[in-house]
Amino acid sequence: MSAALGNIRIVLARPRHPGNIGAAARAMKTMGLSDLVLVSPERAPDAESTALAVGADDILSRARVVDDLASAVADCHLVAALTARRRELSAEPMWAREAAGRLVAAAGAGRVALVFGNETSGLSNEEVALCHFPVMIPVNPDFHSLNLAAAVQVLSYELRLAAVEVGPPPEVAGAGARASVGEIDRFIDHLERAAIDSGFLDPAAPKRLIARMQRLFMRSQLEVEEVAILRGMLTAFEKAGARKD
Amino acid sequence: MSAALGNIRIVLARPRHPGNIGAAARAMKTMGLSDLVLVSPERAPDAESTALAVGADDILSRARVVDDLASAVADCHLVAALTARRRELSAEPMWAREAAGRLVAAAGAGRVALVFGNETSGLSNEEVALCHFPVMIPVNPDFHSLNLAAAVQVLSYELRLAAVEVGPPPEVAGAGARASVGEIDRFIDHLERAAIDSGFLDPAAPKRLIARMQRLFMRSQLEVEEVAILRGMLTAFEKAGARKD
Repeated sequence: MSAALGNIRIVLARPRHPGNIGAAARAMKTMGLSDLVLVSPERAPDAESTALAVGADDILSRARVVDDLASAVADCHLVAALTARRRELSAEPMWAREAAGRLVAAAGAGRVALVFGNETSGLSNEEVALCHFPVMIPVNPDFHSLNLAAAVQVLSYELRLAAVEVGPPPEVAGAGARASVGEIDRFIDHLERAAIDSGFLDPAAPKRLIARMQRLFMRSQLEVEEVAILRGMLTAFEKAGARKD
Repeated sequence: MSAALGNIRIVLARPRHPGNIGAAARAMKTMGLSDLVLVSPERAPDAESTALAVGADDILSRARVVDDLASAVADCHLVAALTARRRELSAEPMWAREAAGRLVAAAGAGRVALVFGNETSGLSNEEVALCHFPVMIPVNPDFHSLNLAAAVQVLSYELRLAAVEVGPPPEVAGAGARASVGEIDRFIDHLERAAIDSGFLDPAAPKRLIARMQRLFMRSQLEVEEVAILRGMLTAFEKAGARKD
């Protein structure tokens, strides 16, 4: 696990729906976060939370339950709060992506927290006063009703991308060895020969058609096995054509 | 709405849980997407979908239900498929962020689709064969069990960021006018005078302390009203000190 992610706490302030707590725990775990604190949840622990956590019930069972936000962030040196609304908080808001970068950088020096408010009422003024800066998720201005667990998912995703060097996507298992340019060239020669022999291509005419086929098969990054199948088919077409003559 | 977002279709292939369909519709709408197609859903329409869609029931009610993926993407010129596993698909996978950019760019030229598989079994080989390239969300390798609606949320968020110029975050409402450097300077002079008069600061000693206070109050981007409060307090402290003398 990234050391930075280990120093980032997710705080849910007065969450109302146990399902959201479970889904938030799952969202955190998919992104490598594990420190969850619940401030005065309406119901916790709860069977619905556990059901929606799926495999993240370890995060739920380790989650600390406290009475107020001050207790949740007392040991944190940087506290951000997701906010959907403009409110009484004079620090400059940051978009989720930039905020994730700032939190991850600060997590290198100690514990930080990201606070999510109640599903309906958000954060109280007292809670907002304990946060250093507001975070916003860019949403559709006509419909900004982001679900609590969905917001935790988006921020956890941004935190992971900010903390972990993801590198190139893993190769898919089915991908076979790519054909070399020479192999593709020999296939194109074969295709041209078959096209001429079949009467489809006039050898005296310009060869733009073959050039287009070459472009197509280069672009599709043919695999060795695919070249073999294509050449096998060509040979079969040639033989069938020869039988007809 | 962004024209590109209007050309991007979200396809859920054989979704099992009606709740996920509703939550996916809500996730889409928060990010400005609206074209939802359901391939052979286990249950649709369903009260649980509507409940979880919250204000996105218009997207649910307009969602087209079809029998197979081929019907869902027949009019699309680029089709991406979210995949969690390595599977038999030889196109290069792309991370969500890059894939969103590619889909948005292609959406400028016509309809495109992003396909999500069944919660348990993902996509069938026949379904995969209808997709141009796989998309992956970078997840915790030890726990990659991303909820279907959470995956739709992450991708919808990336699509919005790729399609819409979000600009700087909106100013929060409570933020008052910032104090000018001159106002802060006069406050610092006042603070220094009060510190000397109170005996806290020796005017003969170096003034590093005042320089640090200046740095602090510049960094905190004082508002006009905050400067007035601070100076009012200073005056009160001075008067109280004068009374004691």
